[in-house]
Amino acid sequence: MVEAVADIGLIGLAVMGQNLILNMNDNGFTVCAYNRTTSKVDSFLENEAKGTNVVGAHSVEELCAKLKRPRKVMLLVKAGSAVDAFIDQLLPFLEEGDIIIDGGNSHFPDSIRRTAELEKKGILFVGSGVSGGEEGARYGPSLMPGGNAAAWEHIKPIFQAIAAKAPDGASCCDWVGETGAGHYVKMVHNGIEYGDMQLITEVYQIMLEGLGLTHDEMADVFTEWNQGELDSFLIEITRDILKYKDTDGEPLVTKIRDTAGQKGTGKWTGIDSLDRGIPVTLIGEAVYSRCLSSLKDERTRASKILKGPSTKFAGDKKAFIAQLGQALYAAKIVSYAQGYMLMRQAAKDYEWKLNNAGIALMWRGGCIIRSVFLGKIRDAYTNNPELENLLFDSFFADATAKAQDAWRNVIAQAVLMGIPTPALSTALNFYDGLRHEMLPANLLQAQRDYFGAHTYERLDAPGKWVHTNWTGRGGNVSASTYDA
Amino acid sequence: MVEAVADIGLIGLAVMGQNLILNMNDNGFTVCAYNRTTSKVDSFLENEAKGTNVVGAHSVEELCAKLKRPRKVMLLVKAGSAVDAFIDQLLPFLEEGDIIIDGGNSHFPDSIRRTAELEKKGILFVGSGVSGGEEGARYGPSLMPGGNAAAWEHIKPIFQAIAAKAPDGASCCDWVGETGAGHYVKMVHNGIEYGDMQLITEVYQIMLEGLGLTHDEMADVFTEWNQGELDSFLIEITRDILKYKDTDGEPLVTKIRDTAGQKGTGKWTGIDSLDRGIPVTLIGEAVYSRCLSSLKDERTRASKILKGPSTKFAGDKKAFIAQLGQALYAAKIVSYAQGYMLMRQAAKDYEWKLNNAGIALMWRGGCIIRSVFLGKIRDAYTNNPELENLLFDSFFADATAKAQDAWRNVIAQAVLMGIPTPALSTALNFYDGLRHEMLPANLLQAQRDYFGAHTYERLDAPGKWVHTNWTGRGGNVSASTYDA
Repeated sequence: MVEAVADIGLIGLAVMGQNLILNMNDNGFTVCAYNRTTSKVDSFLENEAKGTNVVGAHSVEELCAKLKRPRKVMLLVKAGSAVDAFIDQLLPFLEEGDIIIDGGNSHFPDSIRRTAELEKKGILFVGSGVSGGEEGARYGPSLMPGGNAAAWEHIKPIFQAIAAKAPDGASCCDWVGETGAGHYVKMVHNGIEYGDMQLITEVYQIMLEGLGLTHDEMADVFTEWNQGELDSFLIEITRDILKYKDTDGEPLVTKIRDTAGQKGTGKWTGIDSLDRGIPVTLIGEAVYSRCLSSLKDERTRASKILKGPSTKFAGDKKAFIAQLGQALYAAKIVSYAQGYMLMRQAAKDYEWKLNNAGIALMWRGGCIIRSVFLGKIRDAYTNNPELENLLFDSFFADATAKAQDAWRNVIAQAVLMGIPTPALSTALNFYDGLRHEMLPANLLQAQRDYFGAHTYERLDAPGKWVHTNWTGRGGNVSASTYDA
Repeated sequence: MVEAVADIGLIGLAVMGQNLILNMNDNGFTVCAYNRTTSKVDSFLENEAKGTNVVGAHSVEELCAKLKRPRKVMLLVKAGSAVDAFIDQLLPFLEEGDIIIDGGNSHFPDSIRRTAELEKKGILFVGSGVSGGEEGARYGPSLMPGGNAAAWEHIKPIFQAIAAKAPDGASCCDWVGETGAGHYVKMVHNGIEYGDMQLITEVYQIMLEGLGLTHDEMADVFTEWNQGELDSFLIEITRDILKYKDTDGEPLVTKIRDTAGQKGTGKWTGIDSLDRGIPVTLIGEAVYSRCLSSLKDERTRASKILKGPSTKFAGDKKAFIAQLGQALYAAKIVSYAQGYMLMRQAAKDYEWKLNNAGIALMWRGGCIIRSVFLGKIRDAYTNNPELENLLFDSFFADATAKAQDAWRNVIAQAVLMGIPTPALSTALNFYDGLRHEMLPANLLQAQRDYFGAHTYERLDAPGKWVHTNWTGRGGNVSASTYDA
């Protein structure tokens, strides 16, 4: 009989899985490692895990036998059918009250489904967002667990121990909510990450092409920004990247092909926001920008056909760089405000009680978007848990008010110089749209009523929908089932 | 025994259905009308259809009995389960070779499915886009039929007779392609329509708020625009709308609540573009703008909290209005280029042979987006059926080159004045992105490799993906299954 020695089992020995195991081991937990290709288990035990308490298993059965009860098995495998396949393999060897944790980038509707299916079988399912990449997994990731709440007390000691710590010592892991809430919040996190990255690349291109800065000069700018309100992991690594030289002494980043990959979670956020009717425009533009980047051959041909402007930058570079920092900061605030708008709507749709301050805390450390800034968001939602919009918090309202002149000038200059700023621009357009009590959608409603008899609501008679026969021709039937 | 007197049957007597019947009748076809609530059939025959050759049916069985063979039944009912329900009701009364046409705004995957399902039963299915609103349906819609090609010869005489005619007399209806191609092209049409409408509202808001024009002055601008390269149905109705006075003499449009409705087809286009990885940014922003408009209460509160700029317009109004027209035109070109990029990708994905020039012809008349401009698109694809991107056609490349200075100035001014221009801006950002051989996605790839070991491709070694250990810490494992 195999002895149940392990506190938790982990399936999937790609980089994230390996590093999470080593992290758990560092924190005093005994982990049993399993991988479908079992030679990877042996190789891991003989190399990266050598000298640790990690044990291995060469079958799912052996894995389950080695786990203390209630068994906790964490999957770090490719999202999709592989997760379901492993769940099916595990079920014969699990008992009521055992816990399956999916730490992959699963789509939240799958986690909603799995929570319900496994609950019927007495198994507690947790879908947990895990962020931080290989570094985070190894030294403290951001963890966003949701699903069956009865699992939380059992996994909490491990999860809160291995998670990153905020500067005040709080663990960057707390219970997110029921069913798919963990993976939903992780999805929005990833979307926001797409946005943050896109914003940085836009600012980079303005400095490179508009101001003609060297990569070392840009690294200095990012070094300075990383000491102020923009202090964050992504600003920090951008500094490192800009400094990094290839073997020939040139900045390595200039040798990299400019076609951005994506694995779908940013896209999911964009699609979800369209579906829910929430204008998460910055993430949408960030995803589209990756799409455009991938059309490299078409762009190369376009560069020979389409004309740009002749305007060159003619102002004070130093002052403009400071304005760039302000533009980046303001756009970032808008992006997080949009992300929170989306989570608020999803929480309404699925009846999740999301802890807005807690989410900011979970993102505060360990993950890719970790930043000083998230501490301010946490403060905003701690001060007012019912805050309608992040931009309405006095700190952020003041910050955008202070930044707006710089932000506007940056975009105006970029537009005149022909440098694309899709994310910086859409953020400002959203900001200006949101603060307009009256938008021109009245004209749009008139158009829809004109050609499709869709009816419209009068400002002076809320709730009353009327049709105008704008042409004097046609019938008096108003549309009920058609869009046109 | 009931006599088979009718050339075609039509189910669904909402405004579109009624008007299509009257249109068919005008063109010499005998139509049998049916509606689930049969009192509507009687009312239609006694009123709108009085004195015509239209006949009625009070059951699906009676409808089918009154149709000449092969039977042609057109559904104009709410998209979704109602279509499937009517198909199920019809099947017992149809024979092999009969034709079911769905003229509703069905989602194209449903049309792909229905074509296949009905083909197995020997029934020819056609999913047809119908555009033009109530006016179009009555006097000549744009029709975009796709599905089972064997149906085309049977419905062609009716469809091409009732469709709108282009100025050269060509019918704005041709066969679009197999399976879901008709509804796909209609979906993109609707997305483009969202974009066109959004662009007009942005220009309206700039004239209203930025230039302080009266509605009559704006109507004059639209009147002038409608005589040039912007000549189109939407510009024309905007002119009429701006002139239309309420009973108190004020422009009626100012009394309309500024919250835009939507019925989903614009959203579908946005979602589909994200799914297919094609940057259809203008439609995306147009959909998001409708979402933001619908958050009226939140905007009202925001208008009291968020600060705008103090900049006022100080230039030459007349010159600026001309620039506005150029900006509108250039952004519109981009939007159509994006729409065609999406259709090209879908055609690749589904192996449809789409006739790009034919699509422009179908949209040239009858539908909401009909315009002189679409004749130019038709020319571009007629001159070069393999045209990679609409913007590469010399006419459109010249038009954008000519418009770009004005376009840039309009956006810069709007940004400085705090007037949102999400669609005008995203179009310019796309244009500037497309014409950049080198975008800053190289930095983004470096970031992804830094934190997630995603690897990147070197410009000097295409196809070779490498990982850099940017920090000197961490393992040498590169990620295969994770995004972060």
